[in-house]
Amino acid sequence: MMYDLTHRLTDDVPTYPADPHVRIITGFGVRPWCVSALHLGSHSGTHVDAPLHYMVAGRGIGAYAPDRFVGRGIVIDARGYEPDAPVGPEILTDYHLRPGMIAVIRTGWEIFWNDARYFQHPYLSDGLAQALVERGISLVAVDALNVDSTPGSGETVHATLLGADILIAENLCGLEQLDCGREYVFAILPLALGDVDGAPVRALAWDIDHRFGS
Amino acid sequence: MMYDLTHRLTDDVPTYPADPHVRIITGFGVRPWCVSALHLGSHSGTHVDAPLHYMVAGRGIGAYAPDRFVGRGIVIDARGYEPDAPVGPEILTDYHLRPGMIAVIRTGWEIFWNDARYFQHPYLSDGLAQALVERGISLVAVDALNVDSTPGSGETVHATLLGADILIAENLCGLEQLDCGREYVFAILPLALGDVDGAPVRALAWDIDHRFGS
Repeated sequence: MMYDLTHRLTDDVPTYPADPHVRIITGFGVRPWCVSALHLGSHSGTHVDAPLHYMVAGRGIGAYAPDRFVGRGIVIDARGYEPDAPVGPEILTDYHLRPGMIAVIRTGWEIFWNDARYFQHPYLSDGLAQALVERGISLVAVDALNVDSTPGSGETVHATLLGADILIAENLCGLEQLDCGREYVFAILPLALGDVDGAPVRALAWDIDHRFGS
Repeated sequence: MMYDLTHRLTDDVPTYPADPHVRIITGFGVRPWCVSALHLGSHSGTHVDAPLHYMVAGRGIGAYAPDRFVGRGIVIDARGYEPDAPVGPEILTDYHLRPGMIAVIRTGWEIFWNDARYFQHPYLSDGLAQALVERGISLVAVDALNVDSTPGSGETVHATLLGADILIAENLCGLEQLDCGREYVFAILPLALGDVDGAPVRALAWDIDHRFGS
């Protein structure tokens, strides 16, 4: 089974205040061809952050080999937190995270997509960020706008994770399709940009024993 | 092993004449954050065509489940053709293509990316398009700008493939990493657009027995 974990890219995608807005304009192309113009931000919709997003001398998204975006991972249950509350390292207690894995933190906040509450998501505490570094995670994903506090203009979680060369994926959805703690393969594939701070992705997951057709 | 089959998206991506050009503009975002604006066409760089690209009432890219973009396939050798020459169905003779597979036609033309010759690529003959339909292929990919003739403004191959609900991926690269005739898993993942005629993709392949990390 294959699961889509990507929000649809449309003009009403919720956007971090200063970011470029999404605009999709169809009707380009000479008949009979239909072609569209896509105006996006590097952090529009479901996307990945490269170190350059936070650190002037950081690596861009094009510096990573594709196997950094496809690998085994688990969903960690972090539901039940209050708006703009920190999520501590205790959520990791019952999970077996191996070095190199993808950790998907499920806050449950994806249900507020297209609602003002989407900006009031719980966020990772500094202790949780540090615990993820210590476990050697390769990529941390969340079903919320930001791993840091958005109302609090936080930045320390980005600093800790990107500073340890851990990629960050934000705005995942569809996590209700997956069982927390069960291992899947995640593919969080960015546009093939070069020395750029991040990129929209198509994010999928599939069962470990998936056969990819006949 | 994992192989990247995607051209880098930069401002000098060769573009079909009437299509939107690529522009990547960095420097958005409030310090310390770096954010970029991405101006693309739905057929910029390595991309996939949905039926709506050619047929007014055709399906958009958002109508396809993700398992249409990830599956087993093979590379078919179609090198050695003259510029703007048709490639006939005889190239399929020695290959075992099962229904539902992805067929990647290797013209060798990717070496002319960023050269005027890129627009003079060989193209699929109507007979080859029909043979791919008969074999029940799910997606046809090429390492060239277009499955039809670009100088000849051809459209019949798009009509045949998209009319049979076979997706088309164009502008792949890196095919020298793969053995012709050997089976791989291909992931040709489009941006999560809705009722749109096509989308840029990240295109990867990996060996059938790939383990996705520890």
